[in-house]
Parts: sequence; C-alpha cells; structure tokens
Amino acid sequence: MQITVSNRASTLKPSAIREIFKSLTDPSVISFAAGNPSPESFPVADMQRFANDIFENNANTALQYSITEGYIPLRSAILERQKSKFNIGKDHDTVLVMTGGQQGIEHTCKMLCNEGDTVICEEPTFIGALNAFRSYGCRLAGVPMDDDGINIEKLEQACKDNPNAKIIYLIPTFQNPTGKTMSLEKRIACLEIAKKYGLFILEDNPYGELRFSGEDVPTIKSMDTEGRVIYCSSFSKILSAGMRVGFLILHEEIAGKIAILKQISDVHTNIFFQMMCHKFLTEYDLDAHIEKIKKLYGRKAGLMLKCLDESMPEGFTYTRPDGGLFIWGDMPKTIDPKSFIKELTENKLAVVPGATFMCDGEAVCHGFRMNYSTPSDEQIIKGVDILATVAKRNLK
Amino acid sequence: MQITVSNRASTLKPSAIREIFKSLTDPSVISFAAGNPSPESFPVADMQRFANDIFENNANTALQYSITEGYIPLRSAILERQKSKFNIGKDHDTVLVMTGGQQGIEHTCKMLCNEGDTVICEEPTFIGALNAFRSYGCRLAGVPMDDDGINIEKLEQACKDNPNAKIIYLIPTFQNPTGKTMSLEKRIACLEIAKKYGLFILEDNPYGELRFSGEDVPTIKSMDTEGRVIYCSSFSKILSAGMRVGFLILHEEIAGKIAILKQISDVHTNIFFQMMCHKFLTEYDLDAHIEKIKKLYGRKAGLMLKCLDESMPEGFTYTRPDGGLFIWGDMPKTIDPKSFIKELTENKLAVVPGATFMCDGEAVCHGFRMNYSTPSDEQIIKGVDILATVAKRNLK
Repeated sequence: MQITVSNRASTLKPSAIREIFKSLTDPSVISFAAGNPSPESFPVADMQRFANDIFENNANTALQYSITEGYIPLRSAILERQKSKFNIGKDHDTVLVMTGGQQGIEHTCKMLCNEGDTVICEEPTFIGALNAFRSYGCRLAGVPMDDDGINIEKLEQACKDNPNAKIIYLIPTFQNPTGKTMSLEKRIACLEIAKKYGLFILEDNPYGELRFSGEDVPTIKSMDTEGRVIYCSSFSKILSAGMRVGFLILHEEIAGKIAILKQISDVHTNIFFQMMCHKFLTEYDLDAHIEKIKKLYGRKAGLMLKCLDESMPEGFTYTRPDGGLFIWGDMPKTIDPKSFIKELTENKLAVVPGATFMCDGEAVCHGFRMNYSTPSDEQIIKGVDILATVAKRNLK
Repeated sequence: MQITVSNRASTLKPSAIREIFKSLTDPSVISFAAGNPSPESFPVADMQRFANDIFENNANTALQYSITEGYIPLRSAILERQKSKFNIGKDHDTVLVMTGGQQGIEHTCKMLCNEGDTVICEEPTFIGALNAFRSYGCRLAGVPMDDDGINIEKLEQACKDNPNAKIIYLIPTFQNPTGKTMSLEKRIACLEIAKKYGLFILEDNPYGELRFSGEDVPTIKSMDTEGRVIYCSSFSKILSAGMRVGFLILHEEIAGKIAILKQISDVHTNIFFQMMCHKFLTEYDLDAHIEKIKKLYGRKAGLMLKCLDESMPEGFTYTRPDGGLFIWGDMPKTIDPKSFIKELTENKLAVVPGATFMCDGEAVCHGFRMNYSTPSDEQIIKGVDILATVAKRNLK
C-alpha cells in the first residue's frame, strides 16, 4: 500500500549523527562523532544505592502515573540550585521536567510557532534543534558566528528580514558544534535585540556546568527580568544521558501551555529517574561529582588539542573550547569536504560533517565536529594521527 | 510581556483527567476518576532485583545515549511475544519502543496528518488521543458506538463525509472510557472500510491483555496483511505506568518515518527501563503476573458491578466490561450532567464527566467514566453508595 506522510514529516531526514551512532558497530573505527558523555562520568554505585532506596521506601510513587509538570521535590531542588548557583529563575519562573533537553526544545517550538514561522539560530548549530524546528514547518534563518559567538549585526539583520520570526535559538556556552562561548557583551545584546523585535530566546545550556578553563559568563536567562528567555538544560551530561531527564526554566504562564503539550506527548517523564535526580540534588555532593567530570574532560580536550597542535598542517584550523564536549575543525576551501570526510571514514576515523549543522543541510561546509569525551586517550592520539595524515595528503 | 502561542497550542485545554488527578490531594475524596493501574500490580521485588542486575552487569549501556528505535533485544522480545501469543506482526512489521503508548499515538498523527486533516474515532474516546490529534490541527469526526463497538454504517458515512481523513483511531478492546469490546465482525468491517477509503487504522490496545471474563477477540492488527494497521500498546497496565515504556508494531517503512520524529522529540525512551522490560519478557513469568492482575481487576470490577446492581435506581445504566479498567455510566436525559457531577464531587466522589471524551468538548454528554482498579474495596463500596444516593436524589 502507498504511504503518504504529512508535509512536515516528508521534509525530514534522519540525523546524520544518530545514523553514524548506529553504524559505529565496527570496533576498529575510532569515533570523534558522538556527543556522548564519558561512561567514566556515570556515578553507577550511587545510582544503584539510590535506586534500592526508592524501591524499598517509595516504590508505589516511582512506578505509578505522575504529574506532567514533573516530580514536585525535583522541580523545587532544580530551581533552588539554579537560583543559588547561577542566579537563574525569577519569581514568575518555574521548572518543567522534560524527557531530555531535546523535548524542551521541541515543545517550545510546538507551543510558539505556526507553520511558516521563522526560528533564528546560530549557524552552525545543534542538528537535533534544527530538525525539531523543521518538524513543525518552521523556516530557519542562520546567523554566522564570530569567535566570541553569534554576529550581532547579522542577528539584528535577520530579525529585520524575518517579521515572522518567533524564537532566537542560542547555545551561548560551549556551543554545539563549535565549542565557542558567547561573550557577556553579546549576551546582553542578544537580549536587547529579542526585546526590540518581540522575540523569545530559547537558551539551550546542556554543557554550561562543564567549564574546565576560563571564567564563567552569566547565562542570558540570569539577566532576563520579564520571562523572555526560555532556559533549557538537562542531567544528560552530568549524571546520565540514557535516563532522559532534562528541564526548562521559564515563565509560569508559558510553562502551563507547554505542560498541556507534554501531557499529550508522553504524559510525564520517567518518574523513577526523576526521583533519582532529586536524590542526586539533595543527598549527594553533585558539585564534587561535576568537578571530576570537568577535570576528566579538561584533560581529554587538552590531549586532543595537543595532538592537533603537534600534527595538523597549516591551513587547517580548530577551536579551543573552555568546556563542553566539542572541537570544531575547519579545512581549507580548496578541499572538497565530502570526499575529505569519506577518506577519514575509510581510514577508520568518524567525524561529523559540518553540513549536518547548517540550516540548509545541502550547503557546502568546510567544517567538521570532533568530540573528545567519548574516545579513550589512545583513540584520541590515534584518531588525530589519522586526521593529520589525511589532511596532509589532501593538501598536496 | 505578551505571549502569543501557536494556533495549535491555543486550542488546547488541560486534560480534565490530569487536572482531576492533580486536585485529588484531599484524602477524603474517593476517586473513580483515575485510569491508573493498581499499585498492587507492580512487581516491586522483581524490579529491584532486575535493576541491581543491570547496575552490576550493564550499567554503561543503561545510562548512556541509545538508539531511537529502542533497545534491540527488547524490540525482538516484544515482537516474539506478540507474534506467538496474539498473531501480531507480519514480515514487513517492526517494533518501535515509545515513551508510553501516548507517544505512539501522538507520533502517528504527527507523521500522517497535515493541519486540517481529519481523524475518525469512536465517540466517546480517550481524551489523550483526542488532544494529541487536536495539537496537530486535526479535525475530529466522532462515530457513535453500539454495545458491540463502533457503529459500522456511521463509520462508513464518516469516511465518505471526510475526504481529508487519514486515520481511523480505535480502541477495540475494553475501550476507554466505555469498557466496551468490539465484535469480530465489526473489526473485520473496520479493516475493510479502511482499505476501501485508503485510511490507516491506529489500533490502541493498552488493556487487551487484561481480560477477566469472556473470550479473546483477535486484534485488527492480527488480520492486517498489508501494514494498514498501526498497533499501539504499552507496559503501563501490566508492569508500571510511571516508567513510560510503550510500543508500536507497524510496517517498517512507516516505522522509519516515525523514528525520525522520535529522534527529535526525546532521542530515545529511558534505556534503563527498556532493559528492565526486556528482563520481564525473558527472565520472568510475565503471563503468570498478568493472570494475577486479571484476577485482581476481575474481582474489583465484579464488586463495583455488584454494588451498582444493588443500589442504582432505574434510569441509570452502566456497561459490564470483560476486562480493562473502566465502567461507563449513563444518567437519564432529564438530569443536567454538569450539576450531577458537581454534586458527586461535593459528596466526595470524583468521576470523569463524559463530555471530556467527546470530539466537541463542549457537547452535552450524560455519560461518566468510573475506574475500579485504583480505589480500595472499601472505597468502591462507599463510592457507589454516594453515587446511588445522589442519583436517587436527582430522580426526585
């Protein structure tokens, strides 16, 4: 029988990253392509202890239907931590527990955008967000980035050019895929532009706590007095990605509307792991745990940068992140990116092609994303060696 | 600041059931309003044992990002069980693990329907499905039910009247909210009508295994040779609702398209509890466990029916389900349903007003839904007593 899908579904292709993830069954391939936290960062023993505690003392709550907005003690604990540590959350703000930050992004778009509306974003940016916006028939307006974040003049121009814009989507800290961090001045400017053009900012901050060098920069949300910023984060990079627990911090009026959409999407997020997260926030030294992850990722990023510094030929450039999971590489314009990436794969190194992160997925992009949190030290050394060898060969 | 939401979001109201659930904090209120499985049905000790096993032997898989389509061993185990026990799944079919059956319904609609398309459904029907369809701008065409399921002549008329229809949404077994089961003849007729008009059937079967009297009727999916039926079910009513693990069984071509949508919705379903479900399917006597739940619900349904038989005045009617969680009551047309339900609430009994389950939520409906799986025996006896007292008072 013939299957005709909706217009919105017909435009979507599987995310290249998830597809790469699926194809990484060949153990001889070194992958810089993932966006996974290191398994070393999972606090397994404490999780097991907390799980047993829940089964023994609170099983009926943990296994029964629960409230869409999230486990109330978890919501309170998240808000308290974000307020005290990061000055996030005004009196009108509340927390919605989401099934991963991804659901927060998708639901924000579903709630705010009609088909044909525009989402303005950094370019390159997170493919999962781009595809979520596409799935609701949104147009995408990409704004180029400088070393210190989105180009402000071009952002304002995009706002002028797109009267149907509803959202500015930003990952200001350790951006995916570039690893760049937006300066404080630019954050202030983004908020002013959003006000001027009547737009919401969706501030996606899954990596913000993972800074291993430099000084913290305040989130845009921390400067938001009127509820214009919808703040999205998650426990995926600090506790476990597989449990799928993320959250939004946002004006309670918007939260109420997103909760209605979540109700009919998955009713609520797995309540057992919401209770686990609550225990990690209240009966555990989460900050000490995050310090360990930062040290681990700082060391791994340092190793990858050292290898790149020592071996990459002139003409290739790469970012130097202060945190997060990613380094962004750029090849000379004389090289064809598709055949370069293909040659890497043939030599058993997987990276993510930059075009994946562009608003126009068919655009030519000379960048590529590398991840240092998942590969072992040995794999980082060997993988960069493959990269440098292929790079040099392509410069001849 | 002013918040303008999308057209799709602006039409939605919170589900009356979830709202009732939230307000049931007064312990003196007896609730027949839930759709919850009985906490007695949770296999807590075995869950704890399996959880420890996973933490000790497979923690890195259980806490890391995973594949969107679902944990492969779980997908295989689901298909094997459904095939061998219920003849569900042809060679072209596959399993997608979803974050509860609700996500299966929502994603099916997102994948198949454009704004303005019509979904044809039984009326009354599950509010969570109605709101999912509404959230994608679908029109709803409700078809009245007879005692043995949807009225076939009116179903065909609805197909004729709605050339934009894409899906027939059905809960053939122990329907929510009526508790009715569709006859085999009508199931065959539904499939023929779907073929004739080129429609998909979304067969929602969360309660099908919970039959406590009468004989099993084959699912529509078991008679589907071409992939026209998208079959939706879940572990919520047989293991735990709070873990949010459901599944679709459907043509692999459609599955691929839904997986792309799920990728950008929540990436994948909580992988730890997918692994738990796999253990329950492969290292546990799930059938014996389900037998216990059936006995429990059969006893509770019998008790509620006995109480109703003994005390309800003439003019009030109610269904006699052979399984599932619900009894549907009907009051005489002389009574105003809104004030009747309000009077029940004032007398500390919560039921769900029938209008909740209508395509037009503002319609007058003299029905109401009662649940027997959640209240205790004592609460069932006392609750029906309140219902009968208020009913008699309203007949005067």
